[in-house]
Amino acid sequence: MRMYDLIMKKRQGGTLTPEEIRYFVEGYTKGEIPDYQVSALMMAIWFRKMDPQETLELTLAMRDSGDVLSLEGIHGIKVDKHSTGGVGDKTSLALTPMVAACGVPVAKMSGRGLGHTGGTIDKLESFPGFSTSISTQQFIENVNRIGIAIMGQTADLAPADKKLYALRDVTATVDNMSLIASSIMSKKLAAGADAIVLDVKTGSGAFMKEEEDSFALAKEMLSIGRMAGKQMAAVVSDMDQPLGRAVGNALEVREAIETLMGKGPEDFTELCMTLGTQMLLLGGVAQTEEEARGKLEESISTGSALKKLAEFVEAQGGDPAAVYDPSLLTTAPLVTEIPAPCDGYVRKIACDEIGICSLMLGGGRENKESEIDLSVGMVLHKKVGDAVKKGDSLATMYASDAAKAEAATKRFIAAYEIGEEKVPERKLIRGIL
Amino acid sequence: MRMYDLIMKKRQGGTLTPEEIRYFVEGYTKGEIPDYQVSALMMAIWFRKMDPQETLELTLAMRDSGDVLSLEGIHGIKVDKHSTGGVGDKTSLALTPMVAACGVPVAKMSGRGLGHTGGTIDKLESFPGFSTSISTQQFIENVNRIGIAIMGQTADLAPADKKLYALRDVTATVDNMSLIASSIMSKKLAAGADAIVLDVKTGSGAFMKEEEDSFALAKEMLSIGRMAGKQMAAVVSDMDQPLGRAVGNALEVREAIETLMGKGPEDFTELCMTLGTQMLLLGGVAQTEEEARGKLEESISTGSALKKLAEFVEAQGGDPAAVYDPSLLTTAPLVTEIPAPCDGYVRKIACDEIGICSLMLGGGRENKESEIDLSVGMVLHKKVGDAVKKGDSLATMYASDAAKAEAATKRFIAAYEIGEEKVPERKLIRGIL
Repeated sequence: MRMYDLIMKKRQGGTLTPEEIRYFVEGYTKGEIPDYQVSALMMAIWFRKMDPQETLELTLAMRDSGDVLSLEGIHGIKVDKHSTGGVGDKTSLALTPMVAACGVPVAKMSGRGLGHTGGTIDKLESFPGFSTSISTQQFIENVNRIGIAIMGQTADLAPADKKLYALRDVTATVDNMSLIASSIMSKKLAAGADAIVLDVKTGSGAFMKEEEDSFALAKEMLSIGRMAGKQMAAVVSDMDQPLGRAVGNALEVREAIETLMGKGPEDFTELCMTLGTQMLLLGGVAQTEEEARGKLEESISTGSALKKLAEFVEAQGGDPAAVYDPSLLTTAPLVTEIPAPCDGYVRKIACDEIGICSLMLGGGRENKESEIDLSVGMVLHKKVGDAVKKGDSLATMYASDAAKAEAATKRFIAAYEIGEEKVPERKLIRGIL
Repeated sequence: MRMYDLIMKKRQGGTLTPEEIRYFVEGYTKGEIPDYQVSALMMAIWFRKMDPQETLELTLAMRDSGDVLSLEGIHGIKVDKHSTGGVGDKTSLALTPMVAACGVPVAKMSGRGLGHTGGTIDKLESFPGFSTSISTQQFIENVNRIGIAIMGQTADLAPADKKLYALRDVTATVDNMSLIASSIMSKKLAAGADAIVLDVKTGSGAFMKEEEDSFALAKEMLSIGRMAGKQMAAVVSDMDQPLGRAVGNALEVREAIETLMGKGPEDFTELCMTLGTQMLLLGGVAQTEEEARGKLEESISTGSALKKLAEFVEAQGGDPAAVYDPSLLTTAPLVTEIPAPCDGYVRKIACDEIGICSLMLGGGRENKESEIDLSVGMVLHKKVGDAVKKGDSLATMYASDAAKAEAATKRFIAAYEIGEEKVPERKLIRGIL
């Protein structure tokens, strides 16, 4: 088999066989096939696309390029959740204790943030002492004992995807549905869950800006997961404005805790309920959506979800005191209000710009080596559809540096589009597949 | 400027600006832009194509990546000739002395053969002592003194093209009209002639198998040349069977000499006349085709072209004795006849296969390091349209090794398609542009 022939075949619109896909993924991972041939193939795939069978094979080959976790030691149906990422997306922080409290074991791999989107691990480190660097054995024991554990992604999870994504990133071949879907799913499948619930974001703060594309990506991932023998569900949700009100690591943890106390923002609470319902159904602990929703609501009203969060934080070395008293979380010294520049209604919020404001304050990573400031960020008081008067606070900003705060404030205001006419609120849940 | 943006622009069907094209060609030549980004761009260009302006800019940027020869020291209009290559194509050997004898100065860069097509320099080395490793100064002096000189391509001629072609060759991005045309033309423009006559081959032994593609390539190259300020002409000629009868280095030299003696094969003689006519017209030594053809015929009948070849060989260190007595050229020890397997008419000759037979005998290079045997090859006695009887000699084979001869004979016979019905002879000249 020759890589040249694979490039030519795809360029001419042919379909790569499972053997051909394995050949190139394995050869590339081992360094036997050079970058320049793979980037040419990626560009040919961008133009010619891949069919569902090719996409599945690529996913499986990338999954098999590294460690494939066995979660057999964990009792029950393991349900994983994956979000395509966005601004203010602290869903895992609230959702996983909720479903764990309802009896669905949560054995989750999470990542750190990069660019304008945050990462679950960074956020969890707002609890002093908390660590996701635990052994696989510890991970499994924790899930069996308290129902929940989160570990950092090991270097050996789908290394082919890591290498391929880095190459696509610099050769303008990222935005192909099959390649995106197989990249996400290769890691999810390697992480060993029995069932996966996908949260596919759509809008200006999401990877997929158009709703049509988000649905297409959701369908592509569902198809891969099902062909690979997993129980699957997907929710397409709005990311055209930040989720909830808090953006910034410790601020988001506080909002997640408040949500578990029944005092969270309406949109964020609804997303947790919707995703949680799918997780409980796939996990077999509820038979109908009503039953699932009832259990989730109970986990909040009885405080069992909040207690589960505390157990989880403590089991991974963190101080759980803040779970019951969020004021103990780190806070930034400079607290200012961002004033509305005029009267009107909030028509649009450039969501990725809000993420960039957090980055400017020091709350995100410019590159992999950046240190992040957990205490900074914003809490939004006005979202799309809200009426504002000039001088009203659009958001409270938490900063450590006055110059950074000033620059971020300007950018924050510019991200808001305020018009004279009333606009409808944005619908959060766009579809459940 | 970022290479990523150029890839994305072309992928989306945009047009690269002259600055963008210079940026990538210069960056790639210097090693500042990596192979994997350039191969992705090449694949995007394959799909989206380039317009005439982009093609011109790429050509000029590649021309300017290395030395650009100045032939100003040579008197008169310098006319170059370029063939896209084929089997049995010894045109330069006969044509250049003919036009030089008619007063058009020939200052030519030539290459060596690779794969199933031969190279002019290899063929010329059949004259003992002949060398194309001469200085630029010597080259110019020789043209002024005797009207003709041929030098080997220096390493510094269009190095960007060399690097880019090597990359395209392993990433399935060779067969794009703009890329092929700019590759050829960048070297031709760097070689410094005032006018260029192109011989674009078409058929099974040519790079372009389809006549339509050959015409398109010819037009693309004419357009580039004219936009770059050169006088241009192109001939599209048949390469669906070997040109003339001889295939193999010394055998082709002998055929070229016989042609200068007026005893050459009809098709090869006609091609030299056709190309020579265009060269004389561009060179300004004839005003009409009739006048040009008359001068070329005279160069043969008076022996002035043959004398010019002898002068040229001697001026570059070769022994010219063989020019007047071709039996002095090296000959292979094993001479056999290849018998026709049945009665009928020659319908087709797989031209590239005949080139491969010569390669198998040791007459060509498998790779750049191969030593070649100048003495081996074939002289065809039957060409398309000819009647044959079983056992008739299709060709005489000249070999140095019995085992190689046997293998090449089998392949040679298989390359001939003999049918019962009479077929028309192939038309050699398909068009003059």
